[in-house]
Amino acid sequence: MEAFIDRLASAVRQRGNPVMVGLDPRVEQLPESLVPGGVPDSLDHQAAACAVFCRGVIDVVAPLVPVVKPQAAFFEQLGPPGMVALAEVIRYASERGLLVVLDGKRNDIGSTAAAYARGWLGPGGASAWGADALTVSPYLGDDSLTPFVEVAQERAGGVFVLAKTSNPGGGMLQDLRCEGDQPVYARVAEHVEQLASNTLGRCDYGAVGAVVGATYPEQLAELRAAMPHTWLLVPGFGAQGAGAEDVAAAFDPQGLGAVVNNSRGIIFAHAREPFSGRFGAARWQDAVEAATREMIDALRSATPAGRLGE
Amino acid sequence: MEAFIDRLASAVRQRGNPVMVGLDPRVEQLPESLVPGGVPDSLDHQAAACAVFCRGVIDVVAPLVPVVKPQAAFFEQLGPPGMVALAEVIRYASERGLLVVLDGKRNDIGSTAAAYARGWLGPGGASAWGADALTVSPYLGDDSLTPFVEVAQERAGGVFVLAKTSNPGGGMLQDLRCEGDQPVYARVAEHVEQLASNTLGRCDYGAVGAVVGATYPEQLAELRAAMPHTWLLVPGFGAQGAGAEDVAAAFDPQGLGAVVNNSRGIIFAHAREPFSGRFGAARWQDAVEAATREMIDALRSATPAGRLGE
Repeated sequence: MEAFIDRLASAVRQRGNPVMVGLDPRVEQLPESLVPGGVPDSLDHQAAACAVFCRGVIDVVAPLVPVVKPQAAFFEQLGPPGMVALAEVIRYASERGLLVVLDGKRNDIGSTAAAYARGWLGPGGASAWGADALTVSPYLGDDSLTPFVEVAQERAGGVFVLAKTSNPGGGMLQDLRCEGDQPVYARVAEHVEQLASNTLGRCDYGAVGAVVGATYPEQLAELRAAMPHTWLLVPGFGAQGAGAEDVAAAFDPQGLGAVVNNSRGIIFAHAREPFSGRFGAARWQDAVEAATREMIDALRSATPAGRLGE
Repeated sequence: MEAFIDRLASAVRQRGNPVMVGLDPRVEQLPESLVPGGVPDSLDHQAAACAVFCRGVIDVVAPLVPVVKPQAAFFEQLGPPGMVALAEVIRYASERGLLVVLDGKRNDIGSTAAAYARGWLGPGGASAWGADALTVSPYLGDDSLTPFVEVAQERAGGVFVLAKTSNPGGGMLQDLRCEGDQPVYARVAEHVEQLASNTLGRCDYGAVGAVVGATYPEQLAELRAAMPHTWLLVPGFGAQGAGAEDVAAAFDPQGLGAVVNNSRGIIFAHAREPFSGRFGAARWQDAVEAATREMIDALRSATPAGRLGE
């Protein structure tokens, strides 16, 4: 199988946009039509409703965008039935031609990190869960990242390491100034760029990417320059406040090098203006489509992603 | 229900030792009697063997130690069947009077962190998984920890935040010297101690604890002094090289304030000397018991935990 990062670059080029749709099935926010008498009591029924919802989102976005990002937390919250739903959603997305980045922010010491990596990474039966890539947290240092990188290389998978996250409190550790007046996030970025350089695909990006929040446009520009071989996963667009202009600096001049995630702003578009008025809960999939197209257009107008079709 | 930290202090006093047994069911290391014919191909069968193994460990250690720590990675590696096994193992341990700290090192931004916390924290049907406490990673900063602390408080649960981990590479970020020449781990410890002080139980420790590796005895002593209200979860004993002397500084003078984890050294004792010669694979549970008793004795001889019975 072709390397993950080359499959990602191809999919972005082919769809002509870098939109990543975040699958965060918050059970209490599902459209009424999927939970007719309100949120069911049983976790089995909640998980089933979440799976139906995610499949419905995937049906809409699969022809439009290159990649989806299921958030493990919202499936884990539902216990074992939620995990069965997660496996089903990953498989469903893959079968419809979407790349799948599992957002689990996993991390542990060596041999335990390897167990996470072997479990999650590898589509098409190569692993139990079948994701193409996984987000990981760097707090445990270089030897905790190595097993993820090795398994990603073996399985044509990918890893996105948290560098500068989109939340306001992210700065508490990430912005601490260390030796050489370098902030912690920049030290992480330096290491990730090294890992990326060692795992290059044909597209000149590596199997190891970085998570850098859209809510910090300056750092996005700084890290794009400092990490020329590192594909960026950019969260924070939409509900968290960032717009297309904020993420423009994440891309290379060809419009590659970044995917921009939107979760709530797309999947729950039926509950926000202007889509709630135009579609309402019964036509929630039309709202998903409209919100996806709106984001695609915004990124194509205001960022180098507009050059993808050329 | 009584606060987690008070239930932990009581259990440590009642058992007279601070041993935490790590449940890391590495499927390729299970005793032969549980996988006759070698590791089965199907994940269902692998997960079933892991569940039988963990129940067998729990049967042995429940009368001896206060707490177990299932490692999420080894269950996740087996896909949805592994997660069903994990839920069963947590329930089985709770029913036999053990406290359960799920080692998941979960972390995410606010509302997503809350989903993890609600899913994992709360025994006896209060949550989908039913753990008493959860390990979490601090890289995303203070606002990523708050939801875990809040849910822990609501559900009489606990949280252990990674501060100084036991692996050699942990120093890459954790030992970086920042403003005021303070290493990153000490900055994390400062924040955790504040959270602990705000969530005190009757035992004068808080609902928020810290993970500090046994492989760094100097930092263990430093952090014990700097974090008087923070219960320490100390990994790295046994297979990772630390002994009883190395962890002595983790305790307060009464022998409280720390639990010391041993995973492979206990659960796979049948495969290492001197237990392999004495028991062999068929009597693997006898090896688990002997290794547990050996660790209890070592901690009681060489640390303040010896005063627990007084």
